[in-house]
Amino acid sequence: MPLDATTNLAPLPLVNYDQRDGVYDVVIVGFGAAGTCAAIEAARAGASVLVVERTGGAGGAAALAEGILYLGGGTATQIAAGVLDTKEAMRAYLMVACGPEVDEAKIDAYVEGSVAHHDWLVDLGLEFEPSIDLETQMAPKGTEGLVWSGGENAWPFSEIAAPAPRGHLARTKRSTGWLLMQTLAEAAVAAGCEVLYDTKVERLLTDGDRVVGLEASRYGQPYIVQAKKAVVLCAGGFIYNDEMVAAHAPELLQGTWKVGTESDDGRGIQMGMALGAQTKSMHAGEVSLPIIPPRKLVEGILVNGFGQRFINEDTYMGRVGQAALYDQAATCFLIVDEACYEPNWMGIEAAWVCETVEELEQEMGLIPGALAGTVALYNRHAALGEDPMFHKAKNYVRPLVPPLGAFDLRPGVAPYAPFTLGGLATTVNGQVLHIDGTPIPGLYGAGRTTSGVCSFGYASGLSIGDSTFFGRLAGKAAAAEESR
Amino acid sequence: MPLDATTNLAPLPLVNYDQRDGVYDVVIVGFGAAGTCAAIEAARAGASVLVVERTGGAGGAAALAEGILYLGGGTATQIAAGVLDTKEAMRAYLMVACGPEVDEAKIDAYVEGSVAHHDWLVDLGLEFEPSIDLETQMAPKGTEGLVWSGGENAWPFSEIAAPAPRGHLARTKRSTGWLLMQTLAEAAVAAGCEVLYDTKVERLLTDGDRVVGLEASRYGQPYIVQAKKAVVLCAGGFIYNDEMVAAHAPELLQGTWKVGTESDDGRGIQMGMALGAQTKSMHAGEVSLPIIPPRKLVEGILVNGFGQRFINEDTYMGRVGQAALYDQAATCFLIVDEACYEPNWMGIEAAWVCETVEELEQEMGLIPGALAGTVALYNRHAALGEDPMFHKAKNYVRPLVPPLGAFDLRPGVAPYAPFTLGGLATTVNGQVLHIDGTPIPGLYGAGRTTSGVCSFGYASGLSIGDSTFFGRLAGKAAAAEESR
Repeated sequence: MPLDATTNLAPLPLVNYDQRDGVYDVVIVGFGAAGTCAAIEAARAGASVLVVERTGGAGGAAALAEGILYLGGGTATQIAAGVLDTKEAMRAYLMVACGPEVDEAKIDAYVEGSVAHHDWLVDLGLEFEPSIDLETQMAPKGTEGLVWSGGENAWPFSEIAAPAPRGHLARTKRSTGWLLMQTLAEAAVAAGCEVLYDTKVERLLTDGDRVVGLEASRYGQPYIVQAKKAVVLCAGGFIYNDEMVAAHAPELLQGTWKVGTESDDGRGIQMGMALGAQTKSMHAGEVSLPIIPPRKLVEGILVNGFGQRFINEDTYMGRVGQAALYDQAATCFLIVDEACYEPNWMGIEAAWVCETVEELEQEMGLIPGALAGTVALYNRHAALGEDPMFHKAKNYVRPLVPPLGAFDLRPGVAPYAPFTLGGLATTVNGQVLHIDGTPIPGLYGAGRTTSGVCSFGYASGLSIGDSTFFGRLAGKAAAAEESR
Repeated sequence: MPLDATTNLAPLPLVNYDQRDGVYDVVIVGFGAAGTCAAIEAARAGASVLVVERTGGAGGAAALAEGILYLGGGTATQIAAGVLDTKEAMRAYLMVACGPEVDEAKIDAYVEGSVAHHDWLVDLGLEFEPSIDLETQMAPKGTEGLVWSGGENAWPFSEIAAPAPRGHLARTKRSTGWLLMQTLAEAAVAAGCEVLYDTKVERLLTDGDRVVGLEASRYGQPYIVQAKKAVVLCAGGFIYNDEMVAAHAPELLQGTWKVGTESDDGRGIQMGMALGAQTKSMHAGEVSLPIIPPRKLVEGILVNGFGQRFINEDTYMGRVGQAALYDQAATCFLIVDEACYEPNWMGIEAAWVCETVEELEQEMGLIPGALAGTVALYNRHAALGEDPMFHKAKNYVRPLVPPLGAFDLRPGVAPYAPFTLGGLATTVNGQVLHIDGTPIPGLYGAGRTTSGVCSFGYASGLSIGDSTFFGRLAGKAAAAEESR
């Protein structure tokens, strides 16, 4: 449990230091999706802003991501693409998809501000092509600017709210994530922010209860910065800290593709906790299990280690990964027939192919009769075009005809791509809450250092969406603090 | 998210206060299973001890519990009852049953010290009858002193370690929990501890980084106590704080019987977090679903909302409750036939009885064919005396013969009895760990205010076992601190 003894997380009084390497109104820790947006808004509000970034460049985890932004309620891109969306439908979807126990105030703010946030991003120079990709829940092969990134058009969400594609991708020859972060970082610099790269924050500095600066280390030397208004923690999540993951979300240790950078080691969360901050949903993690494309693979059935179905195959791939890892003992197979079989987008092929389901379950090492019973039950209803158990959309439902194949989708064979969703508890404006329920004076946070709109459930684009949106709110609020 | 503004959790310097209502070497917060044992050991080590108890009496949640103590590795009671147990078997069981991601150092200490802890309890006057109850995993109707309280003799544990009954119950006409706590509280007073009832701790008091006392409130007045050596937090878990449960373990909100007292509102954990303590396994909760006795009910099969089996019916009832609530969307039914049917110990009867399985699944609102397929598969293997899917012990395995009945075991109908297992991260000796990995000077903890031997999995008797055992270690270590 003990961390590296050199981590120096415990806060100290600023008055202990004679040295001052800089004095700014607002000091932002991390120059990723949340940090850039906090920086832009703080600077535009007139604050002097320093961004302290641990690595050698801007972008954080978002620059490596596909860069989908989950936006809706009738964005200009949605309207131009002929998509009918409403705030009510978006809110109804998020309330269920992001649960259980969502932060309703954050969801309300996010839904209410989504259209304006879209326009703010467009004003920065991002272009979203008003067209919809139907094949994937990830970045399309083409230039389409909208994807169905959260399974909104599949059960159960299709019955909860009018579905709409809300995953927005900016037009670029490189990844949207790269373009997005390039754009945001340039906008922050253009707004007047200073950025200090290769600088690691060691601890927060205080004056009584108030956070008034930080001690960083830079090229082996201490670097002391005073923040006259506030410090904003935008330092990412903790998927790269195995010890923290084991303590809070051990299921995620089975994930093979860690979605983040090495800086996502929880240090931002720890710095808040060292000041008595409360946390929320530290157990939660998004775990994408990207099976499709090709989309016709969802005509097959997903089964667990007992040969039982456990989810509708056409749902969001993040829900499949979460269900497999958290609830199904990390065991998952996809059963297909010839009509829907094709190696998937990553080149993963069926691990077993057999003439009969009985042979297949034997080859797979399943209990005799288990998979056969599951296929028989599925086919019985599929013959009527129905999936009463998991409500897969009718267009993907038809009886499976032997010979059958099975993809092995267990961790280590298939990629599970996890990142953490839990973090510091904050107000809508990003104030970090002390365990006593009051804001810690001078301390803000946004992005995956905090618990955002997703308490557990997830849709692609919600982490960058939430990070950019609440990063802006935190930057504005920090700049509006009284100068001390 | 904000707590009641009057909670006053933020620590303050002791020097802010002129008032001193008491000065002791060791001050213990809470007089339950952990607090009494910490008090006994601290006082026996020569320390002056004050226990501050929020309620009007001793005992905490343990006094209301059945009071099973999970002890093994060859206790005198086990040996006298003819039970063969070893440290190795106990350790192998706990490593798996308490996982994932157990605190191995705590398990090692607990296993190594279990026989001596048994003798220490006997020395206090507790008697354990050297006989074994085979019918229940809870307190027997008779006077037997040993129960199989963790499913050690059922799959998967039966294949992991040589099974032994390790649930120890002291002989009494009232509950063992009541007797245990009566005995421990009397021993603490006999050892010289002072106890202050009806006194609520408001905040910890510090001198620099060190905890040196606490501010309590008593009959409306502040009560300031200085601790020359240490404060020990033994203030229970957080099952009675809905807001904390929602933030960390929302699944438990569905539980109907909260296992604890109103004081289990997380205040001890919060006071540690206010000083920057790290937490572990806050998502974890024990959720007993006490179906049996009668034990013959396990000849039936447990199914989820899709009519699928998900666990061996003869396993520990806490594993059934956890699986149902965390992994099966809180939906669970027990399917029985006439040969094993009987209303259970709480008088719960079958909610549905039908001549055929097809009628039954229709009555229950399950998908046509789902339960029928499950029963057919189960019966196919049960005819050979086998349960290859979930490995129920052979003596409970036989084909189910219609007519069939089904118990409705969903929350609200059946009782789910949850309490929280997560809490402050501590060393084996109870030192509360700061988020930077170092012990917080002067602060100890034990019991459900901390994360103990159970990271997620549980067996009956482990919470009181762990609380009493590590309470003792914390009390000893606190008394051994240098006086300041």
